[in-house]
Amino acid sequence: MSQLSSATQNFRAIDVIRKKRDGFELTRQEIEALVSAYTRGDIPDYQVSAWLMAVVLKGMTRPETAALTDAMLRSGEVLDLSSLPAKKVDKHSTGGVGDKTSLVLAPLVAAAGVAVPMISGRGLGHTGGTLDKLEAIPGFNVNLSVTDFRRVLETCGCAMIGQTAEIAPADRKLYALRDVTGTVESPYLICASIMSKKLAEGIDALVLDVKTGSGAFMKNEKDAAFLAELMVETGERMGKQVVALITDMDQPLGNMIGNALEVVEVIEVLRGGGPEDLRELCLHLAGWMLYLGGASKTVEAGKQTSAQLISSGEAFARFRQMVELQGGDPLAIDDPNKLPKAQRTVKVFAAQAGYIASMQCEQIGTACVILGGGRERKEDSVDPAVGIVLHKKVGDRVDEGEALATIHYNDGARAERAKLLIMQSCEIAEKPDSHKRPLIHRVIGQ
Amino acid sequence: MSQLSSATQNFRAIDVIRKKRDGFELTRQEIEALVSAYTRGDIPDYQVSAWLMAVVLKGMTRPETAALTDAMLRSGEVLDLSSLPAKKVDKHSTGGVGDKTSLVLAPLVAAAGVAVPMISGRGLGHTGGTLDKLEAIPGFNVNLSVTDFRRVLETCGCAMIGQTAEIAPADRKLYALRDVTGTVESPYLICASIMSKKLAEGIDALVLDVKTGSGAFMKNEKDAAFLAELMVETGERMGKQVVALITDMDQPLGNMIGNALEVVEVIEVLRGGGPEDLRELCLHLAGWMLYLGGASKTVEAGKQTSAQLISSGEAFARFRQMVELQGGDPLAIDDPNKLPKAQRTVKVFAAQAGYIASMQCEQIGTACVILGGGRERKEDSVDPAVGIVLHKKVGDRVDEGEALATIHYNDGARAERAKLLIMQSCEIAEKPDSHKRPLIHRVIGQ
Repeated sequence: MSQLSSATQNFRAIDVIRKKRDGFELTRQEIEALVSAYTRGDIPDYQVSAWLMAVVLKGMTRPETAALTDAMLRSGEVLDLSSLPAKKVDKHSTGGVGDKTSLVLAPLVAAAGVAVPMISGRGLGHTGGTLDKLEAIPGFNVNLSVTDFRRVLETCGCAMIGQTAEIAPADRKLYALRDVTGTVESPYLICASIMSKKLAEGIDALVLDVKTGSGAFMKNEKDAAFLAELMVETGERMGKQVVALITDMDQPLGNMIGNALEVVEVIEVLRGGGPEDLRELCLHLAGWMLYLGGASKTVEAGKQTSAQLISSGEAFARFRQMVELQGGDPLAIDDPNKLPKAQRTVKVFAAQAGYIASMQCEQIGTACVILGGGRERKEDSVDPAVGIVLHKKVGDRVDEGEALATIHYNDGARAERAKLLIMQSCEIAEKPDSHKRPLIHRVIGQ
Repeated sequence: MSQLSSATQNFRAIDVIRKKRDGFELTRQEIEALVSAYTRGDIPDYQVSAWLMAVVLKGMTRPETAALTDAMLRSGEVLDLSSLPAKKVDKHSTGGVGDKTSLVLAPLVAAAGVAVPMISGRGLGHTGGTLDKLEAIPGFNVNLSVTDFRRVLETCGCAMIGQTAEIAPADRKLYALRDVTGTVESPYLICASIMSKKLAEGIDALVLDVKTGSGAFMKNEKDAAFLAELMVETGERMGKQVVALITDMDQPLGNMIGNALEVVEVIEVLRGGGPEDLRELCLHLAGWMLYLGGASKTVEAGKQTSAQLISSGEAFARFRQMVELQGGDPLAIDDPNKLPKAQRTVKVFAAQAGYIASMQCEQIGTACVILGGGRERKEDSVDPAVGIVLHKKVGDRVDEGEALATIHYNDGARAERAKLLIMQSCEIAEKPDSHKRPLIHRVIGQ
């Protein structure tokens, strides 16, 4: 961090706090000095939390957002993957319910010759996390060293791990502080947090899946689009190719929610089956990743290539290879019955006939958390076996007494609570709604 | 604090932070829970500083401001002075340059039969502090126990001490945090800080002197009036009689700035002399204190009574008595030559002839700090002897080479810096300005 030392001379945190409080634009030097001093432990939490609240309420300009992202990125190690000849492309989702696309995309895109060095997070609140899903596979190790990560990536073209201590330590420290000071909900801070970690992966391009709807953090499309534009512009300012898809999260993605259940659905998609919405979104995101990674001339061509890699079994084989290289049991991929299974199941029935008009998607995610499949607090452990299988989605016809969902559970009391939430979350109307929400709302960037 | 215990049950600081961040009104219970938990050390600085910044940027309603004041007041001891038959009235100034009215008012108002239990602060930044001025009197002890404070008050009707550990501990903790997190500048927080301490004195009524102008914290009258109205309403909501005078601080009050020098000017006023502006403001504030304290039927009658108490020597005798009771040397009051004196003096001359058009009052206060008469940081010590005597005030005619001021100093290098500041701070115009700022701009309340 010697490059930052001159910027931190004569730096007083109080001046930067006041300047932001009064609505002025901070310089790159001021932001760098603040981030590096905080990472080093030279300024206290109470000054940074006051500054964070000022950012939440006063916002940031685009240059400030890029400077913050850059300072957080450079607070730690930036992977140098230039020894890999392939282009490196990653995907990041802002989080949703039943969103297991990462597990499909990494091997699928790798099979097309584009490297995917994916560093993911755990679930928090009503949303699931990629690492929790991977750990539902017996033996799968998400805590690889950088050396092992690189080795897996070189061998099979993709690797999936958790955040390491070396990458963007400023983000880890800032995020922990934001979490307890009411300063999470700022598009500028969300952008810097996501982009600093993703760009530290040493990638050439990034596809962002920004969710909108009742199960997303950004409930309305305007907020989602604002965040998407911010991330695309920030990435471009930092010399990367970035595109953002605003996609629907007004109901869960696919039919399965819960860690092992979602791996089952991933395997279905990689074998050419699976629910239509999940398969479609995976192909669309893969199409963009192939296009940005130089493996196809158009996004549409990338989608077609991806579909072929699924039909041919190559994507599935790549997934199996990655699982094995990361210590997972490949037999559990061959036979999903070997994945963790809940002891009991119970069905949730429709109280009336009609059409599913809407689903309170966040409630369904919360039902999975209640079953033990997610975490309310960071330190909670997760039960990989529990979850929910939806038999109906929005727009589907349902008869009175027909099953809406099946709950997989290990604790009867929790199952009762989850059942109630799921019943409440499904609105049944007499007539079908002619207005269907699109899966992909908009594409931003490129 | 058992009365607060039910309010703090199920209290989560993060919820209160988010609620204020999003612009909602907090309940009395939420504010009480936050303040009492913070005072007990049950919630960390970093959560409170985020909340403070949200308050600075989102403001507070009047009920919220009163609830905050009340919670801070009740965080510690509230003096019970009901055994004193006299009404108890205090005065508080928001701080200025050369403002030594407290030292005149306490004995003057006490001589009229109204008790003045005055708890004051030290100077900070460009403004002086009552405690520093009192300590310029050899032997004067501002650190009396509550028992001794009460004894002095009972004996001579007034007593002047510093903040004790027992009074409003929440304010001490909050102020220290605000000072380092850019959250000082909020009228709501300023109001709660001032009013919680003043109302903990067990007073019946309070006269506020809210300064406006180049030497005040509130540079413009609109901000001063807003703060004044807020404090008056908050006091009234808490069942106290409160009035606020918006008074001028566009130039120093009186002619002397610096601790011992200001005591000299206090003695002059109490002996019937002194500069016109200082005498006039003292009489006006005393008039209000007598009126609110029930010692006069009108404010004007209170002013007249006060003028008589000065002419008769009773006010001076009361000051001398208080000084002696608090351990000070009464001979230094009888002969101000016995007060601390700087080793050297130097004059500041006018570079051109004309009329004093304006004074940068904050710069003059800063010049006194540079001489050693004030403090830049709380832990700095103060030189009681140094200071500035002004020979000209705004509107005065001045010849080229005539003395504008005399600097009393102990360090030649500091004197040079102070001299430059004073010269820069005085604007000399060719013609006199027909528009004269009034000493008292407005009265708010009653």
